[in-house]
Amino acid sequence: MKTNLKSRAFVAPAPVVVASAYDENGKADACTLAFAMMSSHKPPCATIAINATLKRKTLASILAGGVFALNYPDASQVREVDYLGVESGYDADKLAAVGFTVSRGETCAVPIVDQMPLALECRVVHTVTVGSHIQITGEIVNIRADESIVGENGKVDLDKLNPLIYDEESLSYHELGPKTSAAFKPGAALRKSLRKPDDPTAGRTPA
Amino acid sequence: MKTNLKSRAFVAPAPVVVASAYDENGKADACTLAFAMMSSHKPPCATIAINATLKRKTLASILAGGVFALNYPDASQVREVDYLGVESGYDADKLAAVGFTVSRGETCAVPIVDQMPLALECRVVHTVTVGSHIQITGEIVNIRADESIVGENGKVDLDKLNPLIYDEESLSYHELGPKTSAAFKPGAALRKSLRKPDDPTAGRTPA
Repeated sequence: MKTNLKSRAFVAPAPVVVASAYDENGKADACTLAFAMMSSHKPPCATIAINATLKRKTLASILAGGVFALNYPDASQVREVDYLGVESGYDADKLAAVGFTVSRGETCAVPIVDQMPLALECRVVHTVTVGSHIQITGEIVNIRADESIVGENGKVDLDKLNPLIYDEESLSYHELGPKTSAAFKPGAALRKSLRKPDDPTAGRTPA
Repeated sequence: MKTNLKSRAFVAPAPVVVASAYDENGKADACTLAFAMMSSHKPPCATIAINATLKRKTLASILAGGVFALNYPDASQVREVDYLGVESGYDADKLAAVGFTVSRGETCAVPIVDQMPLALECRVVHTVTVGSHIQITGEIVNIRADESIVGENGKVDLDKLNPLIYDEESLSYHELGPKTSAAFKPGAALRKSLRKPDDPTAGRTPA
């Protein structure tokens, strides 16, 4: 039995990322975001949405410079990450305040937070304001990862990354739970069992 | 010590949602997505990205009708949800094949999957193609939830929802882990301790 709930922004679980950029004086700033998603495979892109109705220093720097980094904290950094979301870069040198340092990205002038295990280097390829937020799509031109979070397949091991998850409903953070299933395999097996043997489309790669 | 990884789409953890729409004949179709995020508070919006280089029936129906639902499965539905992602609506009546039924949304003509505990009713307010994917922003005009997943505060209880998480790096699904911290409180406490008592901005609400 379903009931109506008050309309509000809801997509869950939401990732916790720290967007960072240099300002016009070369000073690095960063702010924590949960409005973020993958948005293209070719080229690889990530899209973030930032409240455009408030003064946000990192947002101004991203728009002025056309590049940004998306840094991934691990769950042990929740206090510092939460602070990067509630303090303003106009009022404090946030990164220095929590003892974080940055290194310049390899492909573009973005500040990579040294203490976080993973960062994407992104070039802005599209922006649009919808409602209260500006959506910024960045092409992911490089990925910088601590070797400690890279799996044997050369990709990020999420269990090793131990990322944070944001819950907008209860205003809290969760950790990632256990891996429970492969993707694409159970669905492909079910597809095979559901298609009849004399179906001409059986075994076809889905569109 | 950081190393460079091959550029690819990466935002993690990614949510697992099932987009649904009626086609021009009133037939419901659905497809599973992990490229989704909250994108505006006022009005509340969600943005999804769907591969526009492939024939996708649900995508065509969303663009033709201008409305869609985002259904949230619970983790026990992983096999069916995975199937909805690998089969094509042009080759099968996917929802019927797995025994799912739909009810019409309360505010617009979108198919709500009865067997899933939560759905957003969305009206398309913006679309743009960037790279291989089309980004579709929908205003969330209603939320339909099973009473069993609504907490005492009238909001969705993520622990009760038990949502799925997609890991693009290992092509697998995770469950949500435990709640580990409140949001905004640890950061606000740290901000207070870092601002000096004689700082004129101390205690200010951040911009």
